[in-house]
Amino acid sequence: LSNSHFIIHILGANSAKPPIGLNQTSQLLTIGEGSYLLDCGEGTQFRLDELRLKQNRIKAIFISHLHGDHYLGLMGLLSSMSMNHRTADLHIFAPKGLIEILTVQMHFTEFFPEFELNFKEVNSVSLEKIYEDKQIIVESFPLSHRLPCWGFLIREKIGERRIIAENIPENFPYPFLAKIKNSEIVVWNEQTYHFEDISLPPLPPRKYAFCTDTLFLPHIAQWIAGADLLYHDATFETQHEIRANETYHATSAQAAQLAEMSGVKKLLIGHFSSRYANYNKLLVEAKAIFENTELAIQGNFYPIFNET
Amino acid sequence: LSNSHFIIHILGANSAKPPIGLNQTSQLLTIGEGSYLLDCGEGTQFRLDELRLKQNRIKAIFISHLHGDHYLGLMGLLSSMSMNHRTADLHIFAPKGLIEILTVQMHFTEFFPEFELNFKEVNSVSLEKIYEDKQIIVESFPLSHRLPCWGFLIREKIGERRIIAENIPENFPYPFLAKIKNSEIVVWNEQTYHFEDISLPPLPPRKYAFCTDTLFLPHIAQWIAGADLLYHDATFETQHEIRANETYHATSAQAAQLAEMSGVKKLLIGHFSSRYANYNKLLVEAKAIFENTELAIQGNFYPIFNET
Repeated sequence: LSNSHFIIHILGANSAKPPIGLNQTSQLLTIGEGSYLLDCGEGTQFRLDELRLKQNRIKAIFISHLHGDHYLGLMGLLSSMSMNHRTADLHIFAPKGLIEILTVQMHFTEFFPEFELNFKEVNSVSLEKIYEDKQIIVESFPLSHRLPCWGFLIREKIGERRIIAENIPENFPYPFLAKIKNSEIVVWNEQTYHFEDISLPPLPPRKYAFCTDTLFLPHIAQWIAGADLLYHDATFETQHEIRANETYHATSAQAAQLAEMSGVKKLLIGHFSSRYANYNKLLVEAKAIFENTELAIQGNFYPIFNET
Repeated sequence: LSNSHFIIHILGANSAKPPIGLNQTSQLLTIGEGSYLLDCGEGTQFRLDELRLKQNRIKAIFISHLHGDHYLGLMGLLSSMSMNHRTADLHIFAPKGLIEILTVQMHFTEFFPEFELNFKEVNSVSLEKIYEDKQIIVESFPLSHRLPCWGFLIREKIGERRIIAENIPENFPYPFLAKIKNSEIVVWNEQTYHFEDISLPPLPPRKYAFCTDTLFLPHIAQWIAGADLLYHDATFETQHEIRANETYHATSAQAAQLAEMSGVKKLLIGHFSSRYANYNKLLVEAKAIFENTELAIQGNFYPIFNET
């Protein structure tokens, strides 16, 4: 009953002035053979190379907002994809302005990628579907930051039924197996095979919610409810909650409160302020409210497993 | 007879697809208390931080051309300067297009630096002065690359005469010392002091020539003649000279030939192609023509000393 992996690689989890050796926001979500990039701070292409993550497997890029620490690595990444002979289409979802920012640079640098770039402006006012492929559906929803900013909910599609090998008769034809996986009833050798007798239901689809940079917004709990993993802005400790409000960021305790309210299974916190020498207190303050919390550590990866 | 230092820090010396851990073109020239940035590939701000080089000491930035590996770090650097509370004016010299590239990003990211940015378009057709401050004069000259591209010649200004301490009478007034330094004849206590008797001529001004990315251009020898140090594009080994010509780059042997022709004292080579696992052959082929050649190694610094 194998299943493709669903892994979040942290390419950077710091805010705009990262300590030496650390990077601004970027994450790679890998599902099966494809991958998806969430935000793209300066130097993201080099972090991908370091972790041996293939740039040209990226099918779509989602940019939360247009502060430099979330998009400045995009132009260099696109250039490198082109130098690496990418031919597959690339989808980019971003707030208004990114198209202009890339277009003016492509014009003056005379950069004409050989692959097709499909830009789409993110402007949803509620939870709205913006992307779909064979593997996933992505929805965006508005956050609240100093610039217009969106969160992304990535949902795996429901897969096929899972064949129970030992219940399948010998020489059972492959096309009939496919029908069983697709919840059909099959007649073979004058016998009827009901899909429920020789296969298990599909694995439950996995769900990842990415929320940065934002104030604590209780109402988004409805949109991210039940996610397997929530990544949330946790720029500040509780002692700096006023500063969090002023800068439209959240404390780790607020991130935990949202995790608790929305019934997600696990919380990953990041976008750490440069004022903290370590992130222990951020973690402790979150865990006091929502135990299953982890720090987003650059270079680490966080797999989501199916419940079976 | 102390003198301020004159040091080139290599922040990156690789071409557009650097190996893991290495960076695209950028150099910091430090003279006395001020510094000057030459090109600014992606991640330059992080390289400055790593080497503990202060971003806000940079007085002027010179961009050779608008390929991404030479300018993509600029927007992030400007943001960081602003977050680090810079107030001093900053001068930026770059080819046509950079102003538009920065302006559109400042507009959409709502980034309004509190310091003044003075842009100037580089468009010289010969050796032309573009910048001058208390310490240096910078001239630009056209190179030949796939995009319009310029080299920069940085010349120290002629300093003051150097006082010979043991030839100065006791209690000689300070204002008179200043006159001596300024090549004046002074009368004090009914005695005449000729500046030549109690001081040495100023130290010879130092000169640095920065030439990347470019074809081998013999005619620029006249502009860089006698420089203390020449940094030159040496993307390719001689075996790939045809590829060098096709891509408007130079071989290390060609860089050495230019160094020889122009009578510079030392050659520094860089902009290494990603096809080479090491740069020994680039160095050997250059040294066969011009012995005083070094590889530009990221993180290293190259001081220029006055001849005395």
